[in-house]
Amino acid sequence: MSSEELASRGHTTAAQVRKDLSHFGSFGKRGLGYSIAELSARLRAILGLDRVWRVVLVGAGRIGSALFEYPDFKMRGYDCVAILDSDPEKIGALWGSMTIQSAERLEAVIDELDAHLVILAVPASAAQEVADRAVQAGVRGILNFAPVQIKVPDSIPVEDVNLVMELESLSFKITRGEAGE
Amino acid sequence: MSSEELASRGHTTAAQVRKDLSHFGSFGKRGLGYSIAELSARLRAILGLDRVWRVVLVGAGRIGSALFEYPDFKMRGYDCVAILDSDPEKIGALWGSMTIQSAERLEAVIDELDAHLVILAVPASAAQEVADRAVQAGVRGILNFAPVQIKVPDSIPVEDVNLVMELESLSFKITRGEAGE
Repeated sequence: MSSEELASRGHTTAAQVRKDLSHFGSFGKRGLGYSIAELSARLRAILGLDRVWRVVLVGAGRIGSALFEYPDFKMRGYDCVAILDSDPEKIGALWGSMTIQSAERLEAVIDELDAHLVILAVPASAAQEVADRAVQAGVRGILNFAPVQIKVPDSIPVEDVNLVMELESLSFKITRGEAGE
Repeated sequence: MSSEELASRGHTTAAQVRKDLSHFGSFGKRGLGYSIAELSARLRAILGLDRVWRVVLVGAGRIGSALFEYPDFKMRGYDCVAILDSDPEKIGALWGSMTIQSAERLEAVIDELDAHLVILAVPASAAQEVADRAVQAGVRGILNFAPVQIKVPDSIPVEDVNLVMELESLSFKITRGEAGE
Protein backbone atom coordinates (compact mmCIF):
# COMPACT_ATOMS: atom_id res chain seq x y z
CA MET A 1 0.00 0.00 0.00
CA SER A 2 1.32 3.46 -0.86
CA SER A 3 1.76 6.27 1.66
CA GLU A 4 -0.90 8.16 -0.34
CA GLU A 5 -3.43 5.41 0.30
CA LEU A 6 -2.52 5.18 4.00
CA ALA A 7 -2.80 8.97 4.25
CA SER A 8 -6.20 8.98 2.65
CA ARG A 9 -7.49 6.38 5.11
CA GLY A 10 -6.09 8.30 8.07
CA HIS A 11 -7.28 11.71 6.87
CA THR A 12 -3.71 13.05 6.66
CA THR A 13 -1.03 13.60 4.00
CA ALA A 14 1.40 11.13 2.45
CA ALA A 15 4.33 13.28 3.61
CA GLN A 16 3.02 13.16 7.19
CA VAL A 17 2.66 9.36 7.05
CA ARG A 18 6.25 8.97 5.86
CA LYS A 19 7.56 11.46 8.42
CA ASP A 20 5.65 9.87 11.32
CA LEU A 21 6.82 6.37 10.46
CA SER A 22 10.41 7.53 10.00
CA HIS A 23 10.54 8.30 13.75
CA PHE A 24 10.45 4.57 14.38
CA GLY A 25 12.96 3.35 11.79
CA SER A 26 12.80 2.28 8.20
CA PHE A 27 9.46 1.15 6.78
CA GLY A 28 8.40 0.35 3.24
CA LYS A 29 10.33 0.55 -0.01
CA ARG A 30 10.53 3.58 -2.29
CA GLY A 31 8.22 3.02 -5.25
CA LEU A 32 6.79 -0.17 -3.79
CA GLY A 33 4.97 1.20 -0.74
CA TYR A 34 4.45 -0.69 2.50
CA SER A 35 3.80 -4.35 3.20
CA ILE A 36 0.65 -4.19 5.33
CA ALA A 37 1.42 -7.37 7.25
CA GLU A 38 4.92 -6.18 8.16
CA LEU A 39 3.82 -2.62 8.92
CA SER A 40 0.99 -3.83 11.12
CA ALA A 41 3.21 -6.24 13.06
CA ARG A 42 5.91 -3.62 13.62
CA LEU A 43 3.41 -0.97 14.72
CA ARG A 44 1.80 -3.43 17.11
CA ALA A 45 5.22 -4.16 18.63
CA ILE A 46 6.03 -0.43 18.92
CA LEU A 47 2.72 0.22 20.68
CA GLY A 48 3.28 -2.72 22.99
CA LEU A 49 0.21 -4.49 21.58
CA ASP A 50 1.98 -7.76 20.86
CA ARG A 51 1.32 -8.89 24.41
CA VAL A 52 -1.56 -8.93 26.88
CA TRP A 53 -1.78 -6.05 29.37
CA ARG A 54 -3.49 -6.96 32.62
CA VAL A 55 -5.59 -4.08 33.91
CA VAL A 56 -7.15 -3.47 37.33
CA LEU A 57 -10.17 -1.18 37.29
CA VAL A 58 -10.57 0.80 40.53
CA GLY A 59 -14.03 2.36 40.78
CA ALA A 60 -17.17 0.53 39.69
CA GLY A 61 -19.21 3.63 38.92
CA ARG A 62 -20.47 4.99 35.60
CA ILE A 63 -17.09 5.65 34.02
CA GLY A 64 -15.76 2.29 35.18
CA SER A 65 -18.79 0.55 33.76
CA ALA A 66 -18.55 2.43 30.44
CA LEU A 67 -14.91 1.40 30.14
CA PHE A 68 -15.58 -2.18 31.09
CA GLU A 69 -18.08 -2.50 28.25
CA TYR A 70 -16.00 -0.60 25.73
CA PRO A 71 -16.13 -2.74 22.58
CA ASP A 72 -12.44 -2.73 21.66
CA PHE A 73 -11.07 -3.03 25.16
CA LYS A 74 -10.46 -6.77 25.23
CA MET A 75 -9.90 -7.17 21.51
CA ARG A 76 -6.93 -4.82 21.58
CA GLY A 77 -5.11 -6.85 24.21
CA TYR A 78 -6.25 -5.24 27.46
CA ASP A 79 -7.48 -7.83 29.91
CA CYS A 80 -9.43 -6.49 32.87
CA VAL A 81 -8.36 -8.90 35.62
CA ALA A 82 -10.08 -7.27 38.61
CA ILE A 83 -12.66 -4.63 39.49
CA LEU A 84 -12.41 -2.93 42.87
CA ASP A 85 -14.62 -0.51 44.73
CA SER A 86 -14.83 0.85 48.26
CA ASP A 87 -18.65 0.92 48.42
CA PRO A 88 -19.91 -2.03 50.52
CA GLU A 89 -23.08 -2.09 48.41
CA LYS A 90 -21.06 -2.74 45.24
CA ILE A 91 -18.55 -5.23 46.66
CA GLY A 92 -19.63 -8.75 45.77
CA ALA A 93 -21.78 -7.67 42.80
CA LEU A 94 -21.16 -9.32 39.43
CA TRP A 95 -20.15 -7.52 36.24
CA GLY A 96 -20.35 -10.19 33.58
CA SER A 97 -18.42 -13.04 35.16
CA MET A 98 -16.33 -10.79 37.43
CA THR A 99 -17.02 -10.11 41.08
CA ILE A 100 -16.38 -6.59 42.35
CA GLN A 101 -13.83 -6.81 45.15
CA SER A 102 -13.01 -4.51 48.04
CA ALA A 103 -10.61 -1.67 47.18
CA GLU A 104 -8.62 -2.81 50.22
CA ARG A 105 -7.43 -5.71 48.07
CA LEU A 106 -5.62 -3.41 45.60
CA GLU A 107 -2.09 -4.46 46.55
CA ALA A 108 -3.02 -8.14 46.81
CA VAL A 109 -4.73 -8.12 43.41
CA ILE A 110 -1.84 -6.36 41.64
CA ASP A 111 0.59 -8.84 43.15
CA GLU A 112 -1.42 -12.05 42.70
CA LEU A 113 -2.59 -11.30 39.16
CA ASP A 114 0.63 -9.57 38.04
CA ALA A 115 -1.31 -6.54 36.81
CA HIS A 116 0.48 -3.96 34.65
CA LEU A 117 -2.01 -1.09 34.51
CA VAL A 118 -4.50 0.56 36.84
CA ILE A 119 -7.50 2.54 35.67
CA LEU A 120 -8.48 5.14 38.26
CA ALA A 121 -12.19 5.78 38.00
CA VAL A 122 -12.53 7.05 41.56
CA PRO A 123 -13.50 10.44 43.02
CA ALA A 124 -10.82 13.14 42.99
CA SER A 125 -10.45 12.90 46.77
CA ALA A 126 -9.39 9.23 46.58
CA ALA A 127 -7.19 9.33 43.47
CA GLN A 128 -3.79 10.15 44.97
CA GLU A 129 -4.05 7.56 47.72
CA VAL A 130 -5.04 4.80 45.28
CA ALA A 131 -2.28 5.85 42.88
CA ASP A 132 0.33 5.75 45.65
CA ARG A 133 -0.77 2.28 46.70
CA ALA A 134 -0.82 1.01 43.11
CA VAL A 135 2.69 2.31 42.42
CA GLN A 136 3.95 0.82 45.67
CA ALA A 137 2.45 -2.52 44.64
CA GLY A 138 4.38 -2.45 41.36
CA VAL A 139 1.94 -1.24 38.74
CA ARG A 140 3.58 0.08 35.53
CA GLY A 141 1.19 2.77 34.32
CA ILE A 142 -2.01 4.61 35.29
CA LEU A 143 -5.01 5.78 33.28
CA ASN A 144 -6.54 8.52 35.42
CA PHE A 145 -10.18 9.57 35.04
CA ALA A 146 -10.30 11.42 38.36
CA PRO A 147 -10.45 15.18 37.80
CA VAL A 148 -7.24 15.85 39.70
CA GLN A 149 -3.54 15.76 38.90
CA ILE A 150 -1.83 12.84 40.58
CA LYS A 151 1.86 12.71 41.47
CA VAL A 152 3.79 9.51 40.79
CA PRO A 153 7.46 8.75 40.09
CA ASP A 154 8.68 9.80 36.62
CA SER A 155 9.16 6.16 35.66
CA ILE A 156 5.38 5.50 35.84
CA PRO A 157 3.49 6.97 32.87
CA VAL A 158 0.10 8.53 33.60
CA GLU A 159 -2.56 9.37 31.02
CA ASP A 160 -5.23 11.77 32.20
CA VAL A 161 -8.74 11.80 30.77
CA ASN A 162 -10.45 14.89 32.11
CA LEU A 163 -13.80 15.56 30.51
CA VAL A 164 -14.01 19.21 31.53
CA MET A 165 -10.52 19.87 30.16
CA GLU A 166 -11.59 18.41 26.81
CA LEU A 167 -14.55 20.80 26.72
CA GLU A 168 -12.24 23.68 27.68
CA SER A 169 -9.98 22.78 24.81
CA LEU A 170 -12.99 23.03 22.44
CA SER A 171 -14.18 26.36 23.80
CA PHE A 172 -10.61 27.71 23.62
CA LYS A 173 -10.36 26.75 19.94
CA ILE A 174 -13.75 28.25 19.12
CA THR A 175 -12.93 31.47 20.98
CA ARG A 176 -9.56 31.72 19.23
CA GLY A 177 -11.28 31.11 15.88
CA GLU A 178 -13.71 33.95 16.56
CA ALA A 179 -10.79 36.27 17.37
CA GLY A 180 -9.51 35.50 13.86
CA GLU A 181 -6.21 34.03 15.05
CA MET B 1 2.10 35.06 43.42
CA SER B 2 5.50 34.18 41.96
CA SER B 3 6.00 31.89 38.97
CA GLU B 4 7.83 29.54 41.39
CA GLU B 5 4.70 29.22 43.53
CA LEU B 6 2.46 28.70 40.49
CA ALA B 7 4.91 26.08 39.17
CA SER B 8 4.92 24.22 42.46
CA ARG B 9 1.11 24.04 42.51
CA GLY B 10 1.01 22.84 38.89
CA HIS B 11 3.85 20.32 39.29
CA THR B 12 6.00 22.09 36.69
CA THR B 13 8.89 24.60 36.61
CA ALA B 14 8.85 28.39 36.98
CA ALA B 15 10.50 28.75 33.56
CA GLN B 16 7.73 26.65 31.98
CA VAL B 17 5.01 28.76 33.64
CA ARG B 18 6.57 31.98 32.31
CA LYS B 19 7.09 30.48 28.84
CA ASP B 20 3.55 29.10 28.61
CA LEU B 21 1.94 32.36 29.68
CA SER B 22 4.12 34.37 27.27
CA HIS B 23 2.32 32.68 24.35
CA PHE B 24 -0.76 34.68 25.28
CA GLY B 25 0.76 38.11 25.87
CA SER B 26 2.27 39.90 28.81
CA PHE B 27 1.39 38.72 32.32
CA GLY B 28 2.74 39.72 35.71
CA LYS B 29 5.57 42.06 36.65
CA ARG B 30 9.22 41.14 37.03
CA GLY B 31 10.04 40.88 40.72
CA LEU B 32 6.40 41.31 41.75
CA GLY B 33 4.89 38.13 40.34
CA TYR B 34 1.34 37.78 39.13
CA SER B 35 -1.90 39.30 40.34
CA ILE B 36 -4.08 36.23 40.81
CA ALA B 37 -7.34 38.07 40.11
CA GLU B 38 -6.04 39.50 36.84
CA LEU B 39 -4.34 36.26 35.76
CA SER B 40 -7.45 34.23 36.50
CA ALA B 41 -9.74 36.63 34.59
CA ARG B 42 -7.44 36.73 31.56
CA LEU B 43 -6.99 32.95 31.47
CA ARG B 44 -10.75 32.46 31.72
CA ALA B 45 -11.24 34.81 28.76
CA ILE B 46 -8.54 33.01 26.72
CA LEU B 47 -10.17 29.64 27.42
CA GLY B 48 -13.59 31.05 26.52
CA LEU B 49 -14.83 30.43 30.07
CA ASP B 50 -16.18 33.94 30.58
CA ARG B 51 -19.45 32.89 28.98
CA VAL B 52 -21.87 29.99 29.15
CA TRP B 53 -21.51 27.19 26.59
CA ARG B 54 -24.73 25.38 25.80
CA VAL B 55 -24.12 21.69 25.25
CA VAL B 56 -26.32 19.00 23.68
CA LEU B 57 -25.54 15.48 24.84
CA VAL B 58 -26.31 12.85 22.20
CA GLY B 59 -26.38 9.36 23.68
CA ALA B 60 -27.89 8.61 27.08
CA GLY B 61 -25.79 5.54 27.81
CA ARG B 62 -23.08 4.99 30.40
CA ILE B 63 -20.60 7.55 29.07
CA GLY B 64 -23.34 10.14 28.62
CA SER B 65 -24.54 9.55 32.14
CA ALA B 66 -21.02 9.74 33.59
CA LEU B 67 -20.51 13.06 31.82
CA PHE B 68 -23.86 14.41 32.88
CA GLU B 69 -22.99 13.84 36.53
CA TYR B 70 -19.40 15.05 36.25
CA PRO B 71 -18.97 17.38 39.24
CA ASP B 72 -17.28 20.32 37.51
CA PHE B 73 -19.36 20.27 34.33
CA LYS B 74 -21.88 22.95 35.23
CA MET B 75 -19.61 24.90 37.55
CA ARG B 76 -17.13 25.53 34.75
CA GLY B 77 -19.72 27.15 32.51
CA TYR B 78 -21.00 24.21 30.46
CA ASP B 79 -24.77 24.04 30.50
CA CYS B 80 -26.28 20.78 29.26
CA VAL B 81 -29.45 22.04 27.56
CA ALA B 82 -30.69 18.77 26.04
CA ILE B 83 -30.12 15.02 26.18
CA LEU B 84 -31.02 12.97 23.09
CA ASP B 85 -31.13 9.26 22.39
CA SER B 86 -32.50 7.04 19.65
CA ASP B 87 -33.63 4.24 21.98
CA PRO B 88 -37.44 4.37 22.40
CA GLU B 89 -37.05 2.91 25.88
CA LYS B 90 -34.89 5.85 26.97
CA ILE B 91 -36.85 8.65 25.29
CA GLY B 92 -39.09 10.34 27.84
CA ALA B 93 -37.04 9.21 30.84
CA LEU B 94 -35.88 11.84 33.33
CA TRP B 95 -32.26 12.60 34.21
CA GLY B 96 -32.52 15.03 37.09
CA SER B 97 -34.99 17.56 35.80
CA MET B 98 -34.24 16.89 32.11
CA THR B 99 -36.30 14.67 29.83
CA ILE B 100 -34.43 12.55 27.31
CA GLN B 101 -35.65 13.51 23.84
CA SER B 102 -35.61 11.68 20.52
CA ALA B 103 -32.37 11.96 18.55
CA GLU B 104 -34.54 13.00 15.63
CA ARG B 105 -34.87 16.37 17.36
CA LEU B 106 -31.15 17.14 17.07
CA GLU B 107 -31.47 19.97 14.53
CA ALA B 108 -34.52 21.44 16.26
CA VAL B 109 -32.83 21.42 19.65
CA ILE B 110 -29.59 23.01 18.40
CA ASP B 111 -31.62 25.72 16.68
CA GLU B 112 -34.19 26.40 19.41
CA LEU B 113 -31.74 26.37 22.30
CA ASP B 114 -28.88 28.00 20.39
CA ALA B 115 -26.49 25.21 21.39
CA HIS B 116 -22.75 25.66 20.81
CA LEU B 117 -21.34 22.21 21.48
CA VAL B 118 -22.38 18.61 20.90
CA ILE B 119 -21.09 15.68 22.92
CA LEU B 120 -21.18 12.49 20.86
CA ALA B 121 -21.62 9.54 23.20
CA VAL B 122 -23.11 7.27 20.53
CA PRO B 123 -21.90 4.00 18.98
CA ALA B 124 -19.19 4.28 16.31
CA SER B 125 -21.69 3.36 13.60
CA ALA B 126 -23.86 6.43 14.33
CA ALA B 127 -21.17 9.02 14.99
CA GLN B 128 -20.57 10.41 11.49
CA GLU B 129 -24.24 10.86 10.71
CA VAL B 130 -24.93 12.66 13.99
CA ALA B 131 -21.84 14.85 13.49
CA ASP B 132 -22.95 15.78 9.95
CA ARG B 133 -26.40 16.75 11.17
CA ALA B 134 -25.03 18.76 14.12
CA VAL B 135 -22.63 20.70 11.89
CA GLN B 136 -25.41 21.36 9.38
CA ALA B 137 -27.55 22.69 12.22
CA GLY B 138 -24.85 25.18 13.20
CA VAL B 139 -23.01 23.62 16.10
CA ARG B 140 -19.56 25.12 16.78
CA GLY B 141 -17.56 22.21 18.18
CA ILE B 142 -17.79 18.47 18.94
CA LEU B 143 -16.53 16.33 21.80
CA ASN B 144 -16.39 12.81 20.37
CA PHE B 145 -16.45 9.72 22.58
CA ALA B 146 -17.30 7.36 19.73
CA PRO B 147 -14.31 5.16 18.90
CA VAL B 148 -14.12 6.35 15.29
CA GLN B 149 -12.58 9.32 13.48
CA ILE B 150 -15.27 11.73 12.29
CA LYS B 151 -14.84 14.12 9.37
CA VAL B 152 -16.13 17.66 9.71
CA PRO B 153 -15.17 21.00 8.12
CA ASP B 154 -11.85 22.45 9.34
CA SER B 155 -13.69 25.33 10.97
CA ILE B 156 -15.35 22.99 13.49
CA PRO B 157 -12.96 21.80 16.21
CA VAL B 158 -13.31 18.19 17.34
CA GLU B 159 -11.82 16.68 20.50
CA ASP B 160 -11.66 12.90 20.58
CA VAL B 161 -11.74 10.91 23.77
CA ASN B 162 -10.87 7.35 22.87
CA LEU B 163 -10.36 5.13 25.87
CA VAL B 164 -8.46 2.41 24.02
CA MET B 165 -6.09 4.97 22.48
CA GLU B 166 -5.31 6.28 25.96
CA LEU B 167 -4.43 2.75 27.08
CA GLU B 168 -2.31 2.29 23.94
CA SER B 169 -0.45 5.48 24.77
CA LEU B 170 0.36 4.02 28.18
CA SER B 171 1.51 0.67 26.85
CA PHE B 172 3.64 2.44 24.23
CA LYS B 173 5.38 4.51 26.92
CA ILE B 174 5.99 1.47 29.12
CA THR B 175 7.33 -0.56 26.19
CA ARG B 176 9.61 2.30 25.14
CA GLY B 177 10.79 2.65 28.75
CA GLU B 178 11.67 -1.04 28.85
CA ALA B 179 13.69 -0.68 25.66
CA GLY B 180 15.72 1.97 27.51
CA GLU B 181 14.89 4.73 25.03
